[in-house]
Amino acid sequence: MVRWEPGARERLQVAALDLFATRGFEQTTAAEIAQAVGLTERTFFRYFADKREVLFAGQNVFQSVFTDGAIAAPSDASAMETVEFALREASSFFPNERRPYSRLRQTVIEANAGLQERELLKMAWLGAGIAGALRDRGIPEPSATLAAEAGVTVFGVAFRQWIADGEERSLAEIESEVFQHLRILTVPTA
Amino acid sequence: MVRWEPGARERLQVAALDLFATRGFEQTTAAEIAQAVGLTERTFFRYFADKREVLFAGQNVFQSVFTDGAIAAPSDASAMETVEFALREASSFFPNERRPYSRLRQTVIEANAGLQERELLKMAWLGAGIAGALRDRGIPEPSATLAAEAGVTVFGVAFRQWIADGEERSLAEIESEVFQHLRILTVPTA
Repeated sequence: MVRWEPGARERLQVAALDLFATRGFEQTTAAEIAQAVGLTERTFFRYFADKREVLFAGQNVFQSVFTDGAIAAPSDASAMETVEFALREASSFFPNERRPYSRLRQTVIEANAGLQERELLKMAWLGAGIAGALRDRGIPEPSATLAAEAGVTVFGVAFRQWIADGEERSLAEIESEVFQHLRILTVPTA
Repeated sequence: MVRWEPGARERLQVAALDLFATRGFEQTTAAEIAQAVGLTERTFFRYFADKREVLFAGQNVFQSVFTDGAIAAPSDASAMETVEFALREASSFFPNERRPYSRLRQTVIEANAGLQERELLKMAWLGAGIAGALRDRGIPEPSATLAAEAGVTVFGVAFRQWIADGEERSLAEIESEVFQHLRILTVPTA
């Protein structure tokens, strides 16, 4: 019999991040995470394949806010405009209230090579997902991949700024500025 | 006593790729790779930390052809021009004679999730390395990272085209075309 634990998933995620940040990722076990919120190890594994996946549990939702955004962009939007639209839509996934969590998560990831590789994989999937959405809109290759990966780069640069100490602007504001930087950089020279 | 085996490193690399491609990466051991070229497993481990690293042994040289290129670019080159110069210089690392090896290596990597993660890490390091070279030229952030990662994206797209069936153009030619695509994509719209 599988009992339903209301909010168990989220409580496990918060407890895991806290333990990873204070004790270290390697030093924390799934049993300890479960115990911290009064659950069993067995319950932990009903929600997550392993302790690493706790940090990547929102990946499907994360990815779909971008691809849904790309699908919802105005039909006359260019490839880059579609990507900008997708990033703006997806920025609702990162409201300012989430900034402390995102900042702590980043600290944990940067302290562990395996987590860094996993994060790279997530970003590579994001690029592939956005490129697929662009192709579905009739944008040919290599434009679809170039625009999608440019979007992932902009997101990455803007996200790191968003979680920087003292930063108060919204992710959408920073992304808009970074897109402008990219446009200036790639202006053809005479 | 450590005996010097002339060309052992290269022979091991060629034998490893051949075994990975025919038998599969997981199914091949370091001992078998060594045996294929008449060497011992012990000799194998004098050259490579493990069988995965055989596929990434050239990474330091790979990275430095790009960063050396960025350093050697004309002093008045813009950030993107510096990146284009770096990619053009680095394309000498991939002469057409190397195409069959690169093609086979890609096939092996695409068949294994762990190798794909390792390849992503290599490309992330490449981006960070080029960004560092750009900052050393006085290019500020976020321009340095944006230009460097745009360069890595162009390289990736061009490289996949370079190893595509039937492709005969040089990597430099394809890169130049992909840069042109990127410029058109990012042109500010009215």
